[in-house]
Amino acid sequence: MTTIELDRSVLQLPVITTFGWVPEMVQGLVRDVRVRWALEEAGQPYSVNLISGADQNTPHYRALQPFGQVPAYQHGALTLFESGAIVHHIASATPALMPDDGAGRSRTLAWMFAALNSVEPVVVALWEHDHMGPGAAQPERRAALLKRVNARLDALEAELSDQNYLLDRFTAADILMATVLRSLGYSEVLAGYPVLQAYLERCAARPAARKALAEHMAVFAPKAQHA
Amino acid sequence: MTTIELDRSVLQLPVITTFGWVPEMVQGLVRDVRVRWALEEAGQPYSVNLISGADQNTPHYRALQPFGQVPAYQHGALTLFESGAIVHHIASATPALMPDDGAGRSRTLAWMFAALNSVEPVVVALWEHDHMGPGAAQPERRAALLKRVNARLDALEAELSDQNYLLDRFTAADILMATVLRSLGYSEVLAGYPVLQAYLERCAARPAARKALAEHMAVFAPKAQHA
Repeated sequence: MTTIELDRSVLQLPVITTFGWVPEMVQGLVRDVRVRWALEEAGQPYSVNLISGADQNTPHYRALQPFGQVPAYQHGALTLFESGAIVHHIASATPALMPDDGAGRSRTLAWMFAALNSVEPVVVALWEHDHMGPGAAQPERRAALLKRVNARLDALEAELSDQNYLLDRFTAADILMATVLRSLGYSEVLAGYPVLQAYLERCAARPAARKALAEHMAVFAPKAQHA
Repeated sequence: MTTIELDRSVLQLPVITTFGWVPEMVQGLVRDVRVRWALEEAGQPYSVNLISGADQNTPHYRALQPFGQVPAYQHGALTLFESGAIVHHIASATPALMPDDGAGRSRTLAWMFAALNSVEPVVVALWEHDHMGPGAAQPERRAALLKRVNARLDALEAELSDQNYLLDRFTAADILMATVLRSLGYSEVLAGYPVLQAYLERCAARPAARKALAEHMAVFAPKAQHA
């Protein structure tokens, strides 16, 4: 009896599917961090299903994640993909991540889309130029990419100059925005934005954020791989 | 009395703020089309507030739209930005654009984020390369951008091969995905994707889509500008 109850309890946990290994330069930046962070803020235990790059293109995984990306999410009969949608799904069920009123919920989603559709594309373009493209070898192209990043960061610096979070309290939108901005940590870019630096430190200091990042990084630690 | 009632009725209409003029190459592609389409599907009348590029950076407009982009949305006391969030807000209030059940709503949002975070960034990168960048003058760079677009379109072609829409019915996610894919219409890219071409035709043939696009384009017609 006890065994059966434990099994059922495990089955009812949400499952995050993500990579068991990634190159060092993206460790800490894979999007399962966002989902782990949201679940930690919600106080929701979860389990993790680790896949390899070879698994991305299997019909089995494509049925779960049409583009073969990570993370994917399963909870009971529900399967979800896209980190923004998964975080929103988790946030919708807990006051810890979203206001209760309709207007507050719509504003939270506005900032979630802002993070992923207005800020992330220009940040990723610069990141890729610096890590997988010509980098400093094409200074004009880099300056153009940087200009677009700066335009977004200027707006965010102004927005956050008199408030701690994107809304009047911490929400799921801060999880997305902070994880997007954090990927600029390798560069000189954030040095010009003291308000955003303080915002990132404020977000990163949250116990749920620390735990989520630690558990994400533990996957890549040698001893974890051989445990 | 009648006059007062009419005024109040107008005040209660949602207001879309968008550009009164854009270059011909982006006419039809500005993101207010998405919001107009969603409102037409919902049977919701609306009014339009036209701004110029100079208005984008005023403190007044930045209070409404932190990045100075269009569209912005106002309905009563609620102000919203990001086309994805505005369309979701409209969709949440009508069965015409989203299933009723929680899982269906979460899946709709997953495809909305897929359109704007997984597909649009690579489509926009190719579009910008061809319209505002080196285009065919940098064939290797273009091939790399095209490869990323094709990877997304391959997945969508498979997804839609046995269904008319992204979910088992038309939803707000189709508004976003169709408007993203439609911006490839200038290029050779869609020729290799018969399923996606049929999907785009199916979406574009919807009366709400036709009306939304016609009203968007009417803003740029010479006679409208002098009406």
